[in-house]
Amino acid sequence: MENESPIYSGKAKSLYRTANPGEMLMKFRDDITAFDGGKKDTLSGKGSRNAAVSSYFFRLLEKNGIRTHFLRMESENTMIVRALRMIPLEVIVRNIAAGSLVRNYPFKEGTVLKPPVIVIDFKDDTKHDPMLNDDIILALGVLDRASLTRLKQFARRINTVLSRDLKKKGIKLVDFKLEFGFAGEDILVGDEISMDSMRLWDEKTNESLDKDVYRFDKGDVLSTYRSVTGRILPCENDHRNT
Amino acid sequence: MENESPIYSGKAKSLYRTANPGEMLMKFRDDITAFDGGKKDTLSGKGSRNAAVSSYFFRLLEKNGIRTHFLRMESENTMIVRALRMIPLEVIVRNIAAGSLVRNYPFKEGTVLKPPVIVIDFKDDTKHDPMLNDDIILALGVLDRASLTRLKQFARRINTVLSRDLKKKGIKLVDFKLEFGFAGEDILVGDEISMDSMRLWDEKTNESLDKDVYRFDKGDVLSTYRSVTGRILPCENDHRNT
Repeated sequence: MENESPIYSGKAKSLYRTANPGEMLMKFRDDITAFDGGKKDTLSGKGSRNAAVSSYFFRLLEKNGIRTHFLRMESENTMIVRALRMIPLEVIVRNIAAGSLVRNYPFKEGTVLKPPVIVIDFKDDTKHDPMLNDDIILALGVLDRASLTRLKQFARRINTVLSRDLKKKGIKLVDFKLEFGFAGEDILVGDEISMDSMRLWDEKTNESLDKDVYRFDKGDVLSTYRSVTGRILPCENDHRNT
Repeated sequence: MENESPIYSGKAKSLYRTANPGEMLMKFRDDITAFDGGKKDTLSGKGSRNAAVSSYFFRLLEKNGIRTHFLRMESENTMIVRALRMIPLEVIVRNIAAGSLVRNYPFKEGTVLKPPVIVIDFKDDTKHDPMLNDDIILALGVLDRASLTRLKQFARRINTVLSRDLKKKGIKLVDFKLEFGFAGEDILVGDEISMDSMRLWDEKTNESLDKDVYRFDKGDVLSTYRSVTGRILPCENDHRNT
C-alpha cells in the first residue's frame, strides 16, 4: 500500500487508495511544519502519537452520536477512513483567545470566549487560507445555508464533547480545527483531531501541550506530544492496535 | 471654525466641533489616498464633489426612511452632521465581485453576487482593518446580536435604494462601504457615501467611475469625479448650496 504514491499528500499526512473504493488509508507522517511551511522538521514517532490521539477522539465523537470518517487503525501511524468528498473549509472553534485571534484583533491572550467563537477559513494555499464569512461561503457555492448551519452546529457539539473529555484530564481546549466531508448527503468529520490541529493548555500552568511548542520553540516537541498522548488516552496501548 | 484644530482627521475628511454639542462640522478635504496610505495626492475640487454626492445620497436615504447623520450643507465642502457615537466597523456591501473579493477568493471579477455579499471589517489601522465575522464582532463586544442584525438589514436596504437610483443614471453600484453610529439607542448612517467609498461602473462600458481611477491610474481622477457627480446629481447646483 505505502509503496504506491499517495493520491494526496499534505504537510503531515498522506492519503492512499485501498482495494475498497469507499475506504482510504490515511498515513500520519513524522513531518511537522509551521508558518505556512516556513518551518519544517521530521520528528520520529510524532505521526503515531497524532494518529493515536485522532483515533481516540474520532471514537469518542462516534460514541456521542457525531459521525466521523474513522473506520479502524491499520498500524501505529495509519488509519482506514471512509472516502469523503471533502469540503474545502477549515472550521476553527475558539474557547480562549490565542494565536491569530490575538494577532489580528484586540483580544488579550487567555480571554475566555463565551460563547465560543467559530472562524471558518477557505482551504486555498495559493491565497493563504483566507478567512470567510457566511455570505462569502454561500456566494462561493461551497455550501448551501442549511449545510453551513449544520456544520456550525456540529462544530459546537464537537467542542462540548472534546472540552469535557480534556477537562477531566486537566487540559484546556483553547481552540481546534475541524474539516468535514460529504458521504452522500451526510456530513462527516474528516481529517484529524490531534496536537497538530488543537491548541491545548495545561489547566494549572497554562503550559502549551501542542504544536505551539514547535512553532515557538517552547521545549522538546516529541516529549510534549508523548506526554500529552499519555494524558489523553485512558490506556495508550488500547488505542494503538484496536 | 476651520481655523480650529479638528477633533478627528482621517485620510480625506476632518471633523470639527461646532457651538452646538449635538452637531459637528465635517470637512471633505481635497486629499486622496489609496493602499493604506501608500499613495497620496491633493486634487483641487475633489472634496466638494464627494461632499455633494454624499449629501445627495444622505437625503435620498432619509426620503426612503433610513436615518443618517446628515443635517445640512454649510459650504461646498463642509457639512453639518449629527454627533454620533461611531461604531468601529466598515460595512461593505458587494453586488459584483471586484477588488479585495477577487484578490482574496476565487471569484472572477464582474461576477454578479445574488444575494449581495456583506463583509464587515474592524476599523483598526494598526491591524490594517481586519475582516470580521459575526462571532468575532459579538466576542469583541462591538455590537450585540440585535444591533448587528439591524446593521445588516440597514445595509441591504441602503443597497437597494442606492442601486436603484444609480441604475437610472446608467451606473452599476459594484460595492460600497458604510459606517454607522449611535444617536442614543438609534443607529444612523454616518461618514460619507461618495466616489471614495463606492465602486461604480458605467453600465455600458464597465468603465470605473470612482477611486479605482486613482488607485490604478486609469485616467484623470478629477474629470472622472466631476463627470460622475454630474450624472448622479439631478441638478448639481441644487445640491451644493441647499
